[in-house]
Amino acid sequence: MGLELYLDLLSPPCRAVYLFARRNCIAFELKDVELFKDAILGTSAAAGEGGGEGSAQPGPPTKVTLAKKVPVLKEDDFILAEGTAILLYLSRKYKTPDHWYPSDLRKRAKVDEYLSWHQANIRANAPKTMWIKVLIPLLTGQALPAEKLEEVMEGLGVSLRQLEGMFLQEKPFLVGSEVSLADLTALVELMQSPSAQLPPSLPLPPPSLPPPSPLLSPLPLLQPVGVGCDIFKDRPKLAAWRDRVEAALGKELFLQAHQLILNIKQLSTIQINPQLKEQLAPVLLKMMK
Amino acid sequence: MGLELYLDLLSPPCRAVYLFARRNCIAFELKDVELFKDAILGTSAAAGEGGGEGSAQPGPPTKVTLAKKVPVLKEDDFILAEGTAILLYLSRKYKTPDHWYPSDLRKRAKVDEYLSWHQANIRANAPKTMWIKVLIPLLTGQALPAEKLEEVMEGLGVSLRQLEGMFLQEKPFLVGSEVSLADLTALVELMQSPSAQLPPSLPLPPPSLPPPSPLLSPLPLLQPVGVGCDIFKDRPKLAAWRDRVEAALGKELFLQAHQLILNIKQLSTIQINPQLKEQLAPVLLKMMK
Repeated sequence: MGLELYLDLLSPPCRAVYLFARRNCIAFELKDVELFKDAILGTSAAAGEGGGEGSAQPGPPTKVTLAKKVPVLKEDDFILAEGTAILLYLSRKYKTPDHWYPSDLRKRAKVDEYLSWHQANIRANAPKTMWIKVLIPLLTGQALPAEKLEEVMEGLGVSLRQLEGMFLQEKPFLVGSEVSLADLTALVELMQSPSAQLPPSLPLPPPSLPPPSPLLSPLPLLQPVGVGCDIFKDRPKLAAWRDRVEAALGKELFLQAHQLILNIKQLSTIQINPQLKEQLAPVLLKMMK
Repeated sequence: MGLELYLDLLSPPCRAVYLFARRNCIAFELKDVELFKDAILGTSAAAGEGGGEGSAQPGPPTKVTLAKKVPVLKEDDFILAEGTAILLYLSRKYKTPDHWYPSDLRKRAKVDEYLSWHQANIRANAPKTMWIKVLIPLLTGQALPAEKLEEVMEGLGVSLRQLEGMFLQEKPFLVGSEVSLADLTALVELMQSPSAQLPPSLPLPPPSLPPPSPLLSPLPLLQPVGVGCDIFKDRPKLAAWRDRVEAALGKELFLQAHQLILNIKQLSTIQINPQLKEQLAPVLLKMMK
C-alpha cells in the first residue's frame, strides 16, 4: 500500500498538502473526505472532486485519526495528522527541492519561525471571515452582529500588516528569494478569506437578518457585504507576492486546488436539511462568540 | 558575540528554551527581559532572576524583535523568534542528542505533529487559567463570571484528555520511549495552569468580587478556588509522565526554571500602580471575552 492522503480541499491545510504533493510529483492516492461539505449538505459527497489521483472514500476517516480532522497522511500503518507535520514529512521523505525547506540552518529556522507565527495569527484569524460571511448565515439563518465582523476584520488586518512588515518586507518570498513552505502555508490560508478587507464605502450588514422559513429553503445571501471582496486589492505588495507564489506552484494547479473555495458563494443558494441546521447552529454560534 | 537568549521565565515557551539550552549545556547569555513582570509591576525588573548565565537587560527587546515578544534568539545579526523555531534551531546547531528531535523520519514527524497540535490546543487553553485566576483579578480588581472559568476548564479538560488518549497513550513519553521536544513543550505549558482541574466539591467563585479601593491596594485573592489546585492530581497517567519528563530534564533545573511560576500566587499581594491597572484592564477583559 502506498501513500494515502485524506483531504478536503475546503480546508487550507489540505490544499497546502495537495498542492505540495502535486507540485513535487509525489504519487499519492487521494481520499476525498469532504468532511465539511458532508456536514453542510447533509449528503454523502460525490467522489473524486478536486482531485483525480485515485479512488475517493466518502465520509470521515474515523479509522485513521482519533481527532477526526483532515489532512491525514497514511502510509501502511503509519498515520500522521497536522498539515505542517505532513508537509515536513513529505519534504524529507521525497527529498523535494531544497528551497521548500532549506538545509541552511538559519533559512530553515526562518521557515519554522513563520510556520509557528502563522498558527497563532493568520490561521487564527483568516478562516473566521468565511465563517462569519458565508457559513454561519448559511447554517443558522442569521448574520452575526456587525461589530463581530469588524472585530475579526481588525484582527486579520493586524496579522496582514505583520505578514508584510515582519516577514515579507522587501523580499520576493517570505523567507528570501525562493518559494518555501512558509509561502505555501500563508497563501492557501489567505485564499480562505476573500472578504478580509471591506472597501470603506460599503456599509456593514444589519445586526441580524430575519430567520428564513425553518423548512428547506435557500439561505439569505449576506448582502451588501459581498463575499467577493479581495484582501489583496489594496495591498499591492501582498498581491505581487501572491502572483509569485502562484507562479511558483503553477497557476493551473493552484486554480484547480482552489476551485471549491473560489465558488464558495454558490453554497449559499443550496438547500439545507433543517435538522442539520438545528444541530449545528448553537455550536457555530458558540464557536464565534 | 555569542548566543543570546531573551527570555522571561513567566512564559512557557521561554522556559522550554531555557531548559533545553541548560540541559544540553549550550552556552548562552541570558537577557532577562521580564516583559510581563514589568507590565504587571510597573517597575524596571531586577536583573538576573531565574538565570545566572550572564548579564541582564531590563525592558523589552524592542531592538531585536518587531513583534515585541519573547523568547528571542540573537546570534550576531541573526534574530529568531517563536519558541518552537528556537528549539529546533538549537537542536540542529548544537547537534543535541537524537531523542530530542529524532532523525528517524516517522518519529520526527510525530514530534512535529505534536508541536503543531499543541499550539491550537494545550497552548490555546492552558494559559487562560492563569489569566482568569490570577492576572485578571490582580489587574482589574474583578473576577470574571464563573461560567467563563467553567468554559476554560472545559476546553482544557478536552485538550488534556486528547493529550493522554491521542498522544501519550501507553508510552513513557509522548513520542515513544525517550523524551523529546514534544514532552518539553507540553509540560512547561501545563505548569502554567496549576488550577486546571477543580475538585468537584469546590464551589465556583461568585460572578464578581467588589472592586478594591482605586488607590494602591493589595488585590483580592481569588478564593475559594485556590490557585494551588493541581491538574495532575486526578490524572495518574499524566502525573507519572510529568515525573519522567522532570527526571529527564533534571529535577533541580526544572524547579529552578519554574520558581517564578510556582510562586505566582505571591503576585496577588503586590501593590499595583492604579494608572497601569487602568490602562491594562480593558485590554485584558477584551482578551478574555
